[in-house]
Amino acid sequence: MHKEKFNIGICGMGTVGGGTFTLLQSNQVEITRRLGKTLCVSHVASRRENPLFDTDGIRFSKDVFAVADDPEVDILVEVLGGMEPALPLIMRAIENGKHVVTANKALIAVHGNEIFAAAKRKGVTVAYESAVAGGIPIIKALREGLAANSIHWLAGIINGTGNFILTEMAQKGRSFNDVLAEAQALGYAEADPTFDVEGIDAAHKLTILAANAFGIALQFDKVYTEGISKITIDDVNYAEELGYRIKHLGITRMTDKGIEIRVHPTMISDQRLIANVNGVMNAVVVKGDSVGSTLYYGAGAGAKATASSVVADIIDIVRSSGDESRGNPGNVPSLAFDSLRTDIPILNIEDIHCEFYIRLSVYDKIGVMAQISQILTDHGINIEALIQKEPDSTIVGDVFVPIVILTGTVEERQMNKAIAAIESLEQVVEKITRIRIEQFDGEDN
Amino acid sequence: MHKEKFNIGICGMGTVGGGTFTLLQSNQVEITRRLGKTLCVSHVASRRENPLFDTDGIRFSKDVFAVADDPEVDILVEVLGGMEPALPLIMRAIENGKHVVTANKALIAVHGNEIFAAAKRKGVTVAYESAVAGGIPIIKALREGLAANSIHWLAGIINGTGNFILTEMAQKGRSFNDVLAEAQALGYAEADPTFDVEGIDAAHKLTILAANAFGIALQFDKVYTEGISKITIDDVNYAEELGYRIKHLGITRMTDKGIEIRVHPTMISDQRLIANVNGVMNAVVVKGDSVGSTLYYGAGAGAKATASSVVADIIDIVRSSGDESRGNPGNVPSLAFDSLRTDIPILNIEDIHCEFYIRLSVYDKIGVMAQISQILTDHGINIEALIQKEPDSTIVGDVFVPIVILTGTVEERQMNKAIAAIESLEQVVEKITRIRIEQFDGEDN
Repeated sequence: MHKEKFNIGICGMGTVGGGTFTLLQSNQVEITRRLGKTLCVSHVASRRENPLFDTDGIRFSKDVFAVADDPEVDILVEVLGGMEPALPLIMRAIENGKHVVTANKALIAVHGNEIFAAAKRKGVTVAYESAVAGGIPIIKALREGLAANSIHWLAGIINGTGNFILTEMAQKGRSFNDVLAEAQALGYAEADPTFDVEGIDAAHKLTILAANAFGIALQFDKVYTEGISKITIDDVNYAEELGYRIKHLGITRMTDKGIEIRVHPTMISDQRLIANVNGVMNAVVVKGDSVGSTLYYGAGAGAKATASSVVADIIDIVRSSGDESRGNPGNVPSLAFDSLRTDIPILNIEDIHCEFYIRLSVYDKIGVMAQISQILTDHGINIEALIQKEPDSTIVGDVFVPIVILTGTVEERQMNKAIAAIESLEQVVEKITRIRIEQFDGEDN
Repeated sequence: MHKEKFNIGICGMGTVGGGTFTLLQSNQVEITRRLGKTLCVSHVASRRENPLFDTDGIRFSKDVFAVADDPEVDILVEVLGGMEPALPLIMRAIENGKHVVTANKALIAVHGNEIFAAAKRKGVTVAYESAVAGGIPIIKALREGLAANSIHWLAGIINGTGNFILTEMAQKGRSFNDVLAEAQALGYAEADPTFDVEGIDAAHKLTILAANAFGIALQFDKVYTEGISKITIDDVNYAEELGYRIKHLGITRMTDKGIEIRVHPTMISDQRLIANVNGVMNAVVVKGDSVGSTLYYGAGAGAKATASSVVADIIDIVRSSGDESRGNPGNVPSLAFDSLRTDIPILNIEDIHCEFYIRLSVYDKIGVMAQISQILTDHGINIEALIQKEPDSTIVGDVFVPIVILTGTVEERQMNKAIAAIESLEQVVEKITRIRIEQFDGEDN
């Protein structure tokens, strides 16, 4: 039997839900021409009444579970966000044999393993392209476009708010707090900005990217997460002076000892393409053993960009369903691999090796550099570059001199010990600022 | 019946064929883990004898048609290049019910319509991700990742040799001929570099991208094609002075009057990401109505990058084949749309509107600028920027002054008339150089 029309149920009519609804209407002709079949929003659930839908012949419910139980609905779109009631809703939809499309990164990062297992048992697809990097088809690139590769590493600017803040600091010399306040006013940042600026949102997305890159289970609890709230304009300026930019990156890398999964401010050469991704835009660099470095860039958030990925997932499901609406397993495994590896540990942040930028403030006393150098040497750390500015001669009283050091590659554990030792020197007056530097194999991208 | 092993036949053991063979071997474990099924090279055809394959239990033929006729082969990989015998080989494979993966951009651009029609009749897939931009999964992005969008335009650096030449000219001040000679020595450019530097290779790829962006038939013969061989170091330097870079772009755009499909040197703001794509790398910017601008970057050529896409296509075919090896239509239409539009004309280059850079050389005579300005005004052309350098005072005899003008947006037909009129002035001593400028909607990307 040829099925010519697929019914979509949308749960949640906030930014992404509204954007999805609008996109399915506005591009209906073109989408039908692509598919040879029609997508039809048949049921919408939202806490708020919306008479628009009723007049359009679309069923409207205040209870999202009514969509999961609606026998007319082929594909349920979950765009509520959060864990409750998104998790039980998705599980109910799966149980009822419906395909699911979700933009819920936190839910997938934390509960994806059980969701995908349930979907596999029922032979339905749970698609989540929109959960990572908004409109950029990065999940598709990882799972399909680069499927011939062993992925070595990936690194992404995957939180637009954080990138907006760092861009404004770098381009206009504004302070972190100043830009954050503007981002909130513009609606980029949540009222509680913790998820954005402390890296939790990026950690959710990186969890999903890492699983798809390496074929491992989702392991959000093992991601090292550090935000950008401690980055100062001084750091931004020193970075520029040294030929670097500071970006808030999610990085995951396969090493001999295990997998790194970490979110933190990172200094990268200003010659790299990803260093020039500015404002609210997102980008992900993926290094595969065969393809080399590839980069994917676009809008990481917003109603229209996110809806682009939600609807692309719907189209994928319909295309792979053939003539059947339901009960047909997706062609592509949820986490890119038919069988996941369980033999690779996620590394502790202390086990990673990288170069470091450290900035410290010292009393202008003879001999302090010698002591610092000795401590670094004792921990096997080379000094690759050093900036020591003259003290400000107009200041009366105690004079602090800022010192900036770029180190060679060192195990983070050793760096921590060295920093503790340096901080214990009496001439060192503040907590040391430390920013990891990434060279990414030295490749040009 | 579960089919656990898929047999691959490779026709052509040059750069891409060898790379594909090697990749299928080297990443066999990981690919099997992704697929849950095994890919096995069972037959190789190459003009040259290669004892390697026989010893490996792989059938070897000097006649490529033996692969198309081999009942053991599920998927035929055509990496011969050129039209003969690639076209009859692919048609034979389709006739025999085999899926085909090809890296042959010229063949798809010129004969794709008949190839895809034959594949549709037989219910097999002809995949060609590797034909455009090497390892970048741009066909997948257009056909699937951005499937919810109406595509407004796309623009790409899709010939690595051309980009290498322009990058070296810009960064090192070298001449076109000097860099071309090096590119040939390095093996980037063909011995006959016409396909690269005259834009024919890019036109093949752009033909394929335009068809996938808009859902139109492949129309290679309607692509406007202009190479980079007339770009001088002066133009590169003036562009830099004006805040632009010169890139050899393939551009296709949907307009009210029809579709633009054009390959030519283009001046773009040096602030754009794509202006910073250097060396042999490729990148494509795609503007969709919902997603906004997205960019895809990576290696556009080379054995390993191209093989990455060839093998990704094989994996796609196996995933969408389910338990059947053959006779199963692909889920995604060959040219992105289930039904192609035939109602949109491809515009003549004279019908496009854009800004222009023009460089001319004049005798240092009073009044010439007034005449030029009058001609531009008469053709409705605004002067947006002007560079008129002082004549070189050390030169004895006739003194030529270079003049560079950036115009406002104008129909190319009017620009051509204005250029002809200016060239007819007796004070204008050389043919005018003209480079199109693209602002891409003014968006930051």
